[in-house]
Amino acid sequence: MTGPVVSPVVGMVGAGQLARMTAQAAVGLGIGFRVLAAAADESAAQVCAGTQIGDYRSRRDLLAFGGRCDVVTFDHEHVPGRHLRALEQAGLAVRPGPDALRYAQDKRAMRARLAELGVACPRSDRAGCLDDVTGFADRSGWPVVLKAVSGGYDGKGVWVCGAPDQAAEMLAQLGGIDLLVEEHVAFERELAVLVARSPTGQAAVYPVVQTVQQDGICREVLAPAPGLAPATVAAAQRLGLALAAGVGVTGMLAVELFETPGGGLLVNELAMRPHNSGHWTIEGARTSQFEQHLRAVLDLPLGAPTATARQTVMVNVLGGDDPDLYSRLVHVMAADPGVKVHLYGKAVRPGRKVGHVTAVGGDVAELRDRARRAASYLSCGTEAG
Amino acid sequence: MTGPVVSPVVGMVGAGQLARMTAQAAVGLGIGFRVLAAAADESAAQVCAGTQIGDYRSRRDLLAFGGRCDVVTFDHEHVPGRHLRALEQAGLAVRPGPDALRYAQDKRAMRARLAELGVACPRSDRAGCLDDVTGFADRSGWPVVLKAVSGGYDGKGVWVCGAPDQAAEMLAQLGGIDLLVEEHVAFERELAVLVARSPTGQAAVYPVVQTVQQDGICREVLAPAPGLAPATVAAAQRLGLALAAGVGVTGMLAVELFETPGGGLLVNELAMRPHNSGHWTIEGARTSQFEQHLRAVLDLPLGAPTATARQTVMVNVLGGDDPDLYSRLVHVMAADPGVKVHLYGKAVRPGRKVGHVTAVGGDVAELRDRARRAASYLSCGTEAG
Repeated sequence: MTGPVVSPVVGMVGAGQLARMTAQAAVGLGIGFRVLAAAADESAAQVCAGTQIGDYRSRRDLLAFGGRCDVVTFDHEHVPGRHLRALEQAGLAVRPGPDALRYAQDKRAMRARLAELGVACPRSDRAGCLDDVTGFADRSGWPVVLKAVSGGYDGKGVWVCGAPDQAAEMLAQLGGIDLLVEEHVAFERELAVLVARSPTGQAAVYPVVQTVQQDGICREVLAPAPGLAPATVAAAQRLGLALAAGVGVTGMLAVELFETPGGGLLVNELAMRPHNSGHWTIEGARTSQFEQHLRAVLDLPLGAPTATARQTVMVNVLGGDDPDLYSRLVHVMAADPGVKVHLYGKAVRPGRKVGHVTAVGGDVAELRDRARRAASYLSCGTEAG
Repeated sequence: MTGPVVSPVVGMVGAGQLARMTAQAAVGLGIGFRVLAAAADESAAQVCAGTQIGDYRSRRDLLAFGGRCDVVTFDHEHVPGRHLRALEQAGLAVRPGPDALRYAQDKRAMRARLAELGVACPRSDRAGCLDDVTGFADRSGWPVVLKAVSGGYDGKGVWVCGAPDQAAEMLAQLGGIDLLVEEHVAFERELAVLVARSPTGQAAVYPVVQTVQQDGICREVLAPAPGLAPATVAAAQRLGLALAAGVGVTGMLAVELFETPGGGLLVNELAMRPHNSGHWTIEGARTSQFEQHLRAVLDLPLGAPTATARQTVMVNVLGGDDPDLYSRLVHVMAADPGVKVHLYGKAVRPGRKVGHVTAVGGDVAELRDRARRAASYLSCGTEAG
């Protein structure tokens, strides 16, 4: 008389912290959840039953993995499009699908699609040679930003160039990499809007957040973005919903935005998966982005994306010199019984995202202070990192 | 350069829904977590990496399991005391330890200890023969309650007898089982208080809740207990803290209470593990009972047990006739995007706990209605179960 309930199995390609937190959400839904991991000690592989070890660049590994799942989804955007199509041709539900994922894999395609949709972006152009870059800078001014068309994340694949000789040096170093050149936007701050969309087209949009980046890495998220004009909130949410439909995403879509001095919005990047700008939703929203992603890819009705408190602040924990994170938990938990610590089980390397801390309440300055202290202590053993 | 962070491994004996939800909490703490399951398809075994299959009644299986863990804890109280001592003798941290667990395993020992601590309980006595029972009833009145001294849960091991002939029949049926007879308390309602306690003696007490039982099974939990007099709240919390210290528990202690017509409190049962009366804490408290149990058994500082909303209501999902719970999720999620559904991955059998629903907000009547509708629909496909 035992035996599991008949429920679908979601397979996530990739086993980083996004897969780990998605696994956590899957537990409550009573569904099956598997990851395709490169190694058994990867973040999500440590905590998931039935992990398959394999290579996301191998068509064979992907097909073998997909054969054990009802829906295939991703914790990164690096699976080659031809393999995604092979999965679809094998009859698997691939969510998001290759036509949508292309816009998160190829910045040139993304910029072109956004232009078609009439969405404002930083000016950008092809950067095949130095003349392309200097010609672009003649029109847009220096500095300019060089971006790898594909494969970048967490500040990797992005280079700011202040002058022609720097651009020349950069192009020489990056010889062979397909590049875009973009204007360097003098933004007020960075915002992000998260949207979930299901195959049947239901969508849910989260409160607009402020993200604080340093060296291209997200350090803090303030949810909602403090003092954001209601018209800008509405514009960002409309933009997110329109983009989700316009690129045909299934699952979570994160839209990274620049807020310009006049209150305008420019789309910087897209990601089609749970995103660092949404980690606050675990404690701060009725439905976390991880549960929401699962609901969306399973075509279940979406959960309420509403905030459960006036303000939530998330601060990333970056690796420091000392790998022993766990021993520092004691201090952090003793100092502040109300902060929520999330550790990813990843080996500590300087600057690597190894966890995050969330504080939920009413006053953004107080919450930011508490979350920063905890994250800093976890990173480096002092409260001012 | 990869390899997991050095962090302790908690092993939980038992792989039911309590272990499953503890596993979910372990993910965020970045610790190792393993279960000892009877079978690979048990609730927690479905979602945990590194599950060991074995028998909690086997000393050998327990020692083999313990050898892979830094701390051993439990999702039920049925491991024989001599095996707990063997684990300790093997140098393992067993939390709660055998001296504490005895009071959750043996109702006679529990009643005696509570009497020593001066804690009010229903009157009770040994029920070796019919004369014991009728003699007790002559003093306390009919009906009386017969209880198995050990092994009961969810209404199993409890029998109400209204008259001598019924008691005679019951004793004949239960021949050989070690029994207590207790007075049948005419309570106003049932309450529960949850306390976490760490080996170094730190304790944290949760808001006092009302539990609604039916046929001995917990059906609903209202957190906090509506309209409970502040003096009764304080008395219940003091009682919980005193009991946790008095029985020397490590981890979660659930104290089930009767509120009597005069506002008095009588201790009904003790459980030394996460408990059904604390499932509301996943969404409704800053620190869930599952995270708190892990923090306590690891001797980490305890998290804030404070409620995050004015009111939280939890309703259990009991199995109905149709085993296909998953197909009914669609309706529940579409009807109320704000309720949180937890499914345990257990085979559906009529009356078996297979999940729960939580609603968080302000108005207890509205929340109760929403959670009941969702739970009822999941159980049996209609909103009035």
